[in-house]
Formats: sequence, structure tokens, C-alpha cells
Amino acid sequence: MFEFQSLLRENVSLINENLEKTFQGNLDTPEVILESMKYSLFAGGKRLRPMLMIETCRSLDGDVEVIMPLALAMEMIHTYSLIHDDLPAMDNDDFRRGKPTNHKVYGDATAILAGDGLLNYAMETMLEGAQGLSGELLDRYLTAMKIIMRASGISGMIGGQVADMLSENRVITINELNYVHLHKTGALLEASIHCGCIIANAEPATQGRLITYSNLIGLAFQIVDDILDIEGTESELGKPVGSDEKNHKSTFVSLYGLEASKIKVAELKSEALEILKPIGEKSEFLENLAEYICKRRK
Amino acid sequence: MFEFQSLLRENVSLINENLEKTFQGNLDTPEVILESMKYSLFAGGKRLRPMLMIETCRSLDGDVEVIMPLALAMEMIHTYSLIHDDLPAMDNDDFRRGKPTNHKVYGDATAILAGDGLLNYAMETMLEGAQGLSGELLDRYLTAMKIIMRASGISGMIGGQVADMLSENRVITINELNYVHLHKTGALLEASIHCGCIIANAEPATQGRLITYSNLIGLAFQIVDDILDIEGTESELGKPVGSDEKNHKSTFVSLYGLEASKIKVAELKSEALEILKPIGEKSEFLENLAEYICKRRK
Repeated sequence: MFEFQSLLRENVSLINENLEKTFQGNLDTPEVILESMKYSLFAGGKRLRPMLMIETCRSLDGDVEVIMPLALAMEMIHTYSLIHDDLPAMDNDDFRRGKPTNHKVYGDATAILAGDGLLNYAMETMLEGAQGLSGELLDRYLTAMKIIMRASGISGMIGGQVADMLSENRVITINELNYVHLHKTGALLEASIHCGCIIANAEPATQGRLITYSNLIGLAFQIVDDILDIEGTESELGKPVGSDEKNHKSTFVSLYGLEASKIKVAELKSEALEILKPIGEKSEFLENLAEYICKRRK
Repeated sequence: MFEFQSLLRENVSLINENLEKTFQGNLDTPEVILESMKYSLFAGGKRLRPMLMIETCRSLDGDVEVIMPLALAMEMIHTYSLIHDDLPAMDNDDFRRGKPTNHKVYGDATAILAGDGLLNYAMETMLEGAQGLSGELLDRYLTAMKIIMRASGISGMIGGQVADMLSENRVITINELNYVHLHKTGALLEASIHCGCIIANAEPATQGRLITYSNLIGLAFQIVDDILDIEGTESELGKPVGSDEKNHKSTFVSLYGLEASKIKVAELKSEALEILKPIGEKSEFLENLAEYICKRRK
């Protein structure tokens, strides 16, 4: 587990350095929009999605340099979705990761444009990464781009956000809640692992296992989020607790209760570990990650 | 000119039919977000940008089927930018093209997500269009995608929007005003013509001429907009007139005066026609378009 912690840290550094690099060079834009985009992009995120992508690719002997622009784009997309989600017109959150949210610092208009800018820049970054690729590798790279854009769009994350909005102030069914989480959180996690498989040219059986794994840990991740919103402390989370109740949101905890939710997390974790077994030692990082996600306190 | 008018109408129909088609099939999303996206996408836009792209490509003997997804994406990007621009946090406009703006009908949160959804869907549409292309044509298609995404991003349209915002409530220099218009309006117009050239594999001299043409008519388009904001009527424009003055915006008219602005439009038009001459009869559509843009009343 000590090694895993340092692997996490190394990945965060690698991703941060490469994110910084994308902002060097030929940009013709007012300074304030760059500041606003970087404020949220470098606000101390866990880098879970790009890390999943990179480590899946690496463990299956894929080329990390090829996948890097896709991983960076994934983090930009995740970040833009948080900026827009926090807006007064949406969740109206003042704090995230212990810092004032983007619109609290830069104003609503700049925050909207910073979000738009990050989504657009994600696409520019991926297209830049396609440069110099050809043949079958280029085809796989374009397939991965499609997977990412579908996962972040109306059939993925945006669809989940809309469904989440429609579910406010009423008790929803477990099927509706599953739709929300499979799309709002699950889609980007699944796409991250899927892209890792595609760039590494993994065989179909391995891809299938890893995609199932991503859905299991994605659901576990969300339930842990709901538990922390009740059991966590503001200083651990960097944002107020109890916000689900405040926003009258149905969560796994409100539907199942706290104890049953904890049992569910444990079950999901053991299913996730089980499904990785046939892959053998290549899946060591993902095994540790499943443990980490289920034990996290923030 | 009669023929030109029917060519305009044919293009609008062609673009609308193809836009409709992109929404058929495999979409897994709540109905309301589709409704909201389509509300603005089919609100009676002039389809100027996709038309420029398609007609530039066609007149240079390029393949219209290849460029179609890029043209549709361009219109989606233009539409998303209008939805976000109209939001209360931005220009706070209630009407566009004679209809209530997106957020007036669907609420601010859905309007934000509809905008995000359209930008994302533009990318999905372009990636779908890359399917089946290979070799040198695929390379050119990817180059065109990059041109579009740079033009719509922080170094293009978004940069222009930020600069526009920063220029509110103060008198700006003509250089600042030029930056705003070259980026906010000009970037997508230039990209449309540039992509037409790239997909048709036009020779460099032709590309250079057509890009200059796009900048001339882009500027003329903007000055005409500023003139109409003073001289037009609400029923012609489908939105209140006098909004630039209300928002304390510097415009070409406020800097140069009305008469000098009209002279500038006439000059830009004749420069645009001049630069097309060596291209010969292939540029007939673009010649007519320059006339049309300078004479328009909405």
C-alpha cells in the first residue's frame, strides 16, 4: 500500500506537469480566462479519471505518451463540468476542495466561459495529440476520442446532470438514481478505463472485465460520496456537508439507509476485485485503487 | 440574384435536413435536453457559417458529403454560443430571432446544459464524420477539425467574448474593437471558409484570397449589425434595437459615426469583390454573398 500511495503521487505530478505544458505556447486570449480555467484545473483534484486511463493503458503495455492528451482532456472535461455544476443557476455551491468556487472568484459570466473554454480546449488537446499518428493507431486514437465525447455528452455525463436536476425535490426510484449515477459520474470513469484498453489494444475479454470493474467502482465511489456527505467533516471534504439533504436530493443513503449503503460499498469492492482476478498481476494498480476509493475520507 | 436567393433557400433546407438527421438514432438522454437544444438549433438561423463552408467547398470541387458533418458542427457551435451569450449572467437577452431565448423557455440550468450539450455534440458529429475516411483525406479532415476547434475556443470566439465583456461600460480603442470582432464573430466565419478550402484541397493562393475575403465580409457583417441596432426595427430583427447603447457597448458606429460606418461597409464590400476576381466564376456564390451581407436588413 505504501508503494501505491507513491504511485498515486507520481501520477498526480505527471498529470499536472503535462496539463501545465498544454498552456504553453501559441494562445491568443485575454489573461483572465486563462487564469479562471487554471484556477479550477489546478485546485487540487485527485486526478482519478486521467490516472485510471493512464494506469490501465500502462498495465496493458500501451503507450503512455500516446494516451496522455486523452487523459488531460478527460481532466479538463471533468473540471469544466464542476465549474458549470457549481454555478448559482445549477447547484449554487460556494466552496469546492476548500476553495471558493470559480464563479465566486471570477463572476458567473467568466465562470461560464471558463467552462466552455475547458471543454473546447479538451478537444483541441486531443486533436493536437492525433498529430503524427497514422494507420491503425490513429484509428484507435479516434475511437478513444469518440468514446470520451460520447461519455461527456448528452448520452453520458450531461444526460446524467439533467436527470439529476429533474430528480430534485422528489423521491426517486432506485432505477432513476442508477441512471443518474451511471451517467453523471459513471460515464467518465468507464470511458477512462475503456480508452486505456483501446490505446493498449487490449483483447475483448480484458476490455469487458475492466469496463465492468469501472462500473462497480464508479457506483462505490458515488455511494461513498453520499456517505461522506453525512459522516464526513467540512475540513476533510473542503465543502459543506449535508448538501444533499439541503438540496432535497435522493441518494443511496436516503433510499437504503447508512448501514445498508456501507454494506453495498463492501460488496461492490469485493465484486470489483473478483472480476480483476483473471487479469493477474497487471491489475495490481486497479485492485489497490478499488480499496482506496472505498476507504477514502474525501 | 434570383438564382442566388433560391440557392440560399436550398442550402438552408439541406443544412436543416442534415441537422435533423444527426438527432436520429442512438441517443440515451432525458427528452427535455434534446428539446432545449433543438429549440435553439431550429429557431430560424440564417445558416451563414455552414453555408459558407459548403459553398466554398462545392465551388472548389470538394466533396460536400465529406464536409457536411463539419458544417453541421459549425452551426451547433454557433448556436451554443448564442444560448450562453443570452444568459442572465451574460447579455441577459429575452428575445432572439423573434422568439424567447432558450433560458426564458427552459430555465437557466437547462440552457447552460443545452449549450454544453451542443458544443459536445458538435465534436461527436465531427468524429462520426471521420469514420470511413483514411489517408490524406482523413489528415485534411482532422486539420479542418482543428481549425474549427481553435476558432471556437479561447484563442478564437471565446477569447472574443471575454474581450467583449471586458470592454463593457468603457470607451475602447479601435484596436480593441477589432480584436473583439476578429475573434467573436470573425473566427468562425474565417474557419468556415478555411475548412471549405482544406476539404477541397484548394491551392495556397486561393486559400489566402478566400481567407482575406472572409475577414473583409466578417467585418462588414459586424458593422452592418451595429448599424441595424440603430436603424433597424424590432420586427425586422426579432429582438429589441438599441441594445448596444443600453449595454454601454462601444461599436463601430459609436466610434466612427453612422455615415462613416456605411462608407466603411461599402469599401469592405468592394475590397471583398476585388480579392475574389482572380478566382473567376467559381467565386460567384461568394460575390453574391458579399452583396447580400452588406444589404441585409436583419
